[in-house]
Amino acid sequence: MESWRTAITDADGQRVIVRGHDLVSLMARGTYADIVALLLGGHMPDEGERRLIDAILIGISDHGAGSPSAATARMAATGNRQAPEAAVAAGILAIGDAHAGAGMACMVMIADALARAARESRSPADIARATALEARTEGRRLPGFGHRLYREDPRTTVLFTIAEEHGKAGPGVAFVRALESAVAEIIKPLPINVDGAIAAVLHDLGYPAEAAKLIFIVGRTAGLAAHVMEEYARERPMRVRIPVVYDGPAPVDEPVGDVQR
Amino acid sequence: MESWRTAITDADGQRVIVRGHDLVSLMARGTYADIVALLLGGHMPDEGERRLIDAILIGISDHGAGSPSAATARMAATGNRQAPEAAVAAGILAIGDAHAGAGMACMVMIADALARAARESRSPADIARATALEARTEGRRLPGFGHRLYREDPRTTVLFTIAEEHGKAGPGVAFVRALESAVAEIIKPLPINVDGAIAAVLHDLGYPAEAAKLIFIVGRTAGLAAHVMEEYARERPMRVRIPVVYDGPAPVDEPVGDVQR
Amino acid sequence: MESWRTAITDADGQRVIVRGHDLVSLMARGTYADIVALLLGGHMPDEGERRLIDAILIGISDHGAGSPSAATARMAATGNRQAPEAAVAAGILAIGDAHAGAGMACMVMIADALARAARESRSPADIARATALEARTEGRRLPGFGHRLYREDPRTTVLFTIAEEHGKAGPGVAFVRALESAVAEIIKPLPINVDGAIAAVLHDLGYPAEAAKLIFIVGRTAGLAAHVMEEYARERPMRVRIPVVYDGPAPVDEPVGDVQR
Amino acid sequence: MESWRTAITDADGQRVIVRGHDLVSLMARGTYADIVALLLGGHMPDEGERRLIDAILIGISDHGAGSPSAATARMAATGNRQAPEAAVAAGILAIGDAHAGAGMACMVMIADALARAARESRSPADIARATALEARTEGRRLPGFGHRLYREDPRTTVLFTIAEEHGKAGPGVAFVRALESAVAEIIKPLPINVDGAIAAVLHDLGYPAEAAKLIFIVGRTAGLAAHVMEEYARERPMRVRIPVVYDGPAPVDEPVGDVQR
Repeated sequence: MESWRTAITDADGQRVIVRGHDLVSLMARGTYADIVALLLGGHMPDEGERRLIDAILIGISDHGAGSPSAATARMAATGNRQAPEAAVAAGILAIGDAHAGAGMACMVMIADALARAARESRSPADIARATALEARTEGRRLPGFGHRLYREDPRTTVLFTIAEEHGKAGPGVAFVRALESAVAEIIKPLPINVDGAIAAVLHDLGYPAEAAKLIFIVGRTAGLAAHVMEEYARERPMRVRIPVVYDGPAPVDEPVGDVQR
Repeated sequence: MESWRTAITDADGQRVIVRGHDLVSLMARGTYADIVALLLGGHMPDEGERRLIDAILIGISDHGAGSPSAATARMAATGNRQAPEAAVAAGILAIGDAHAGAGMACMVMIADALARAARESRSPADIARATALEARTEGRRLPGFGHRLYREDPRTTVLFTIAEEHGKAGPGVAFVRALESAVAEIIKPLPINVDGAIAAVLHDLGYPAEAAKLIFIVGRTAGLAAHVMEEYARERPMRVRIPVVYDGPAPVDEPVGDVQR
Repeated sequence: MESWRTAITDADGQRVIVRGHDLVSLMARGTYADIVALLLGGHMPDEGERRLIDAILIGISDHGAGSPSAATARMAATGNRQAPEAAVAAGILAIGDAHAGAGMACMVMIADALARAARESRSPADIARATALEARTEGRRLPGFGHRLYREDPRTTVLFTIAEEHGKAGPGVAFVRALESAVAEIIKPLPINVDGAIAAVLHDLGYPAEAAKLIFIVGRTAGLAAHVMEEYARERPMRVRIPVVYDGPAPVDEPVGDVQR
Repeated sequence: MESWRTAITDADGQRVIVRGHDLVSLMARGTYADIVALLLGGHMPDEGERRLIDAILIGISDHGAGSPSAATARMAATGNRQAPEAAVAAGILAIGDAHAGAGMACMVMIADALARAARESRSPADIARATALEARTEGRRLPGFGHRLYREDPRTTVLFTIAEEHGKAGPGVAFVRALESAVAEIIKPLPINVDGAIAAVLHDLGYPAEAAKLIFIVGRTAGLAAHVMEEYARERPMRVRIPVVYDGPAPVDEPVGDVQR
């Protein structure tokens, strides 16, 4: 019987094999969080990591129909009723750097800051202040901070609580907390949002930066699937009407230009 | 030099070769309509077919930001500012059977009707009446007819005029006109929309039914690209706010359910 | 604080509310399987259902780089190194009716068969034999049966074992087992594949047919993410070379056709 | 009658209106190249620009089934036979910075180099030499140069010939030619590939850098559509078999890891 094997490279460059056989074993006694840690991290998780993976996946699974990914999925579904995979894929395509893709940028920021602290023999809190000052001077946004809706992201609170309960809160979590304080003082109060919390937790769990956006996609797919199912179940095709406000030039009498031949 | 070749199967099952060499020749003396006819139809077009291909592509290239495909592209672009290919792809995913994918269903309807007319020795106008009656009885929508906005689709008028000018209007065009009359009398006045016009024209040009949705995608991509460029050029990230009206149950005090363990 | 709410319609048409508040509560004490049941089924699962959801998600999470969805994701990733969401989305787009989208068709088949048994006062085993005969006569494939590689799908065995252990194996599971016997006798031995097993289990758990393909997408996303991460981490851009065998007509000396003007 | 309008911002920041009315007029007397220039550039083209747009679109419309975008589309189509829009979209998602997305980077490079020449009062040929030296020192690839297959890209030759014939070859074309010479001398002979040629031409036509990748997508969609039609017409579902070579660790007897509880 032909069987398949996938090689996963972990953050230290070590490769781990995952075989069909392993999945069948895990089906009998594991949870989906085990497979996410195995496929994206290259290792089987202990209890604390599993709790955190679950919390992350739940926390980002949905954010209402107004979230760009859900809205894009519903928009595609209003026109395309035959292919739910198309609508879900469309929702995933909305996940760029502006919408919940900031986790990776935040993980890079955390890693760079901690390396800088070591290199310059300074405390992470010190580097946090420097980071806040530089962001203000350069007019740059800090990935992982701020949210359109919340003054405080409750998902961050839960994630950090779980991390501490299981002894998983490390330098990454400490740094973003220090940065939150520095930002409040130097720029303005901005909460650590769910991207920032996920970034800090994944850093302390040893995941590579690329994992942040991908774990977001993995978890959000459940919500997108739900929105597509709702759109199909309860709404007529083509029912979504976008209120377009045109703000371009006024038309003149002649058409836009002669065809030049 | 390694070169590539693509084999195209035309509607009669004949295969045609397209090579890199051919594209280079065409670049020097052809138009894009030539390549669309070659790649999707397996033949080089004459002047009338080229005019029709161009008219089709222009006619469906855009329909404003409120069109589901454009709206989906802009929605993805509001969250994903780094990957224009993602936003354009998202817009294409909205093109299902409800949104402008009806061309293929209409081509199938035309072909079936003309085959039925031959088989039953009846006139196409007769079959048109029967089709309208059956649709009314079964409460079925007729693909290629009706439009959210128009009482009369001006793109249909132009397409059929060009077709007639070049002697390309055949049994397909005649059938949909007969069906439009029958529908107006038996159901209610519904215009032949652009999908129906494209279907009729492509039928008479000898394209397979699958070409209808694909030609729509080819032409619409220009409009999607424009909307994505506008969204990037003029709007801040995450600026699209969807007015969500929630119409589900009211929340109760307790959370949605106990976790059962 | 503006908050969001999503309404989920369950298989009986009842609507359930999911709020941001609920997700935060679940983060503290639930698993991802809870949220999948809630978002796709509209209810919180008991222990048996949670075990089955986890087993389903694990079972279909990956199937090696040769699986069409993983191969499509890697193919997109070889050309597009900047946008992991694009590569994952591409992989999801390969999930149609031929590749692992058969779960929904199988759920429909199960529901129809059980309704037919009730309506005609026949046993499900009887309808199973009839179904196998009709499939053979009409030359139709049975969704949920057969696999390119396996004579017996080990994931089916595990899923049914878990279902039985928790008293969740019902008429759906019984029917597909009866159909497997009938098929072996009337057509040829074909295993219940993972799509068929998932379909039977989801039927007995009360999910709507549309949930089958969507749950597959939700679980497979983890594997696609892993393959994209591997492709980025270990391979150069554009390294995937597809061995194309050209089988079209031979080129002639003249270009493919004169441009007609 | 409700009508739509789209505002297009051209490279100078001026906005142009495109209305449904304009499209209908263009259908009667224009070509698709007119609409591409209008929608992506904000202006109606003269004869030379139209020839160039057509040549660009033709030149990149296809590159064989082994091209990453076509291969991705076919891969998705082998598993998803119901949704051609999904397969075409998947092909578009392969168009990243490695695969034919280098046009934009090349346009940026051209614009920067010409600005630098003006700022430092040096000739473009001088800046070309500096650019080649810097690329060699930093081990950086130059966008728009090199090709897996060709020593000389015939599409570049045709594009530049048409540009010169119509007086459209300007500083952009001159710069990339100077850079090609400098690269051949300082690094090794690398041809200006089609991305580089398109970049130079679009620069001289006044398009913004973002247009490069989008025009590639617009043109390539025709080829992707053809490959999807061929895959559906001539091949069985799931017929694409990817030869996977596994190069990870060897399996050990025990499963990958104990589930830790």
